[in-house]
Amino acid sequence: MDAINGSESFEEIPYADIKSFFDSAPSLGDAAETKIKEELENFIRRNSSPSENGTARRVVCVTSGGTTVPLEQRCVRYIDNFSSGHRGAASTEYFLKAGYAVVFLYRKGTCQPYCSSLPDDPLLECFEVSSESNITVHQTHAEKVKGAISDHRAAIARGSLLKLPFTTIFEYLQILQFIALSMRSLGPNAMFYLAAAVSDFYVPWESMALHKIQSASGPLDIRLAQVPKMLPVLRKDWAPMAFCISFKLETDTKILLEKADMALKKYNMHMVVANELKTRKEEVIVVTKNGNITIRRDMTHAGADVEEPLVKLIVDRHSAYISSQS
Amino acid sequence: MDAINGSESFEEIPYADIKSFFDSAPSLGDAAETKIKEELENFIRRNSSPSENGTARRVVCVTSGGTTVPLEQRCVRYIDNFSSGHRGAASTEYFLKAGYAVVFLYRKGTCQPYCSSLPDDPLLECFEVSSESNITVHQTHAEKVKGAISDHRAAIARGSLLKLPFTTIFEYLQILQFIALSMRSLGPNAMFYLAAAVSDFYVPWESMALHKIQSASGPLDIRLAQVPKMLPVLRKDWAPMAFCISFKLETDTKILLEKADMALKKYNMHMVVANELKTRKEEVIVVTKNGNITIRRDMTHAGADVEEPLVKLIVDRHSAYISSQS
Repeated sequence: MDAINGSESFEEIPYADIKSFFDSAPSLGDAAETKIKEELENFIRRNSSPSENGTARRVVCVTSGGTTVPLEQRCVRYIDNFSSGHRGAASTEYFLKAGYAVVFLYRKGTCQPYCSSLPDDPLLECFEVSSESNITVHQTHAEKVKGAISDHRAAIARGSLLKLPFTTIFEYLQILQFIALSMRSLGPNAMFYLAAAVSDFYVPWESMALHKIQSASGPLDIRLAQVPKMLPVLRKDWAPMAFCISFKLETDTKILLEKADMALKKYNMHMVVANELKTRKEEVIVVTKNGNITIRRDMTHAGADVEEPLVKLIVDRHSAYISSQS
Repeated sequence: MDAINGSESFEEIPYADIKSFFDSAPSLGDAAETKIKEELENFIRRNSSPSENGTARRVVCVTSGGTTVPLEQRCVRYIDNFSSGHRGAASTEYFLKAGYAVVFLYRKGTCQPYCSSLPDDPLLECFEVSSESNITVHQTHAEKVKGAISDHRAAIARGSLLKLPFTTIFEYLQILQFIALSMRSLGPNAMFYLAAAVSDFYVPWESMALHKIQSASGPLDIRLAQVPKMLPVLRKDWAPMAFCISFKLETDTKILLEKADMALKKYNMHMVVANELKTRKEEVIVVTKNGNITIRRDMTHAGADVEEPLVKLIVDRHSAYISSQS
């Protein structure tokens, strides 16, 4: 149905730019690369055997947080994309609840699954040391804190949550490629939920200043190159059968739906989640080939978020997609 | 001794640039501004009365973490300065231990006092929920976690630690000015320990794109203006009697000491702490009018840091400075 039918669905993929991006990107290091690949291989093997009721398990890669673009090789300054990682973290919880195994590709330091409703510094804000030198949780936070710790541990322990951190755009795209290649074998049971805020622009490594840029004299001019679009190559080459959802964030509502629609067609996504910076915690619009669906958080329940109905819709559509492929 | 003797010690201060920076900076908001000023006033009042042994209390403003420079008014992208905030957080602990009251002006999300030796996500990495649904700390982390929670609470409870968060360069410099003006009354008992990584360049608010910059076509050129240097105005006008230490971070050792020395003279600092990106956790060089002092962490003790001997040296010099002024 939604699967691709050969390369005619795609605009021309800028293979030369993509090759040059990866060739010039600083390496993750042999040891780190081997470790990530092994963790992925084990995770996919464990989660690709049929579950107890005989149906194939599903695996989703959730990306979360913003990527950085270094301005210097020995990096002191960088360009960053604003993202708390809240959407990715909360969505991960709902995917786990729906029975998915989740590869959580997240920006170091951003919001973690099960922690999205806790204070910024839970250790300092939620705990006390009693006179008997025991650590206690404030009554007001007790249920949430216990839930966060035990649900997180349980997901890790049963092998259904793999967390992989990134910081730079170079790390993000290299690791995303490893994940996609390892999830390829899952066919339509694989999903990509690309909620990370990925830089559109970067400074190519070889044209980057080696040392900290000096502020001695006058203004600073920076020229940024476009990051080659990786979504088409993810869809066409890395994991062609996977169900793919990308995100579009704009601050200008006038161009948001147009841009989301363009992304749907240009990158051959199955769904594009359009969100506007100011209202993104209240509602999103899911753009599909068959029309747009507005998802709002349940205003009648305090604490209800937009991720719960969003993930529910996506899981339903993923089920339909899997059926259509078998 | 080290106090300034009139304006001849300073290069010409760019008052017009500074005025234009503050005039065009987005406001913190009336409510936020009032709250910060009240907290500061109460904190300084509480900590400026003589202590039990009759000596005047000392107050240090420790700045920590990097400032961001928004590239768009409805900010999605920004330039950031790399800084974990570890140095500021660890130094705050030693200043508190030495009897100082500390105003901790920190970048939201960076390292907090008493947490500098804990894992990144202490909640998820240090705790477990037992079968009786009690929260317990792993044995390996127990002492550090208890220490962090109780020492932090104690410092807040006895009123000797005031934490003020910032994100952007605009917030940082506005709040720093409030702090300096409120600490002015402390004379030589005030200290500024300016460990934050402050942007040298910014996009003036009025010339900033309103909406998210579009990636439609070709490379992106950004012109950044220089942030006017605020150190001379802090020294000359905001808090002229305060003891001032600034930090200089470079990746190129060849220019580090020269730049630190220049900062000492140009901004009339009492000390400049020179650190090189790669070795900054092992050693720093403290540049003063009377020569340079190399401070190394105690290699014979695992877990010893460079901040302990650094703060010890600075406290000694501050004592000498106070004596010289009375």
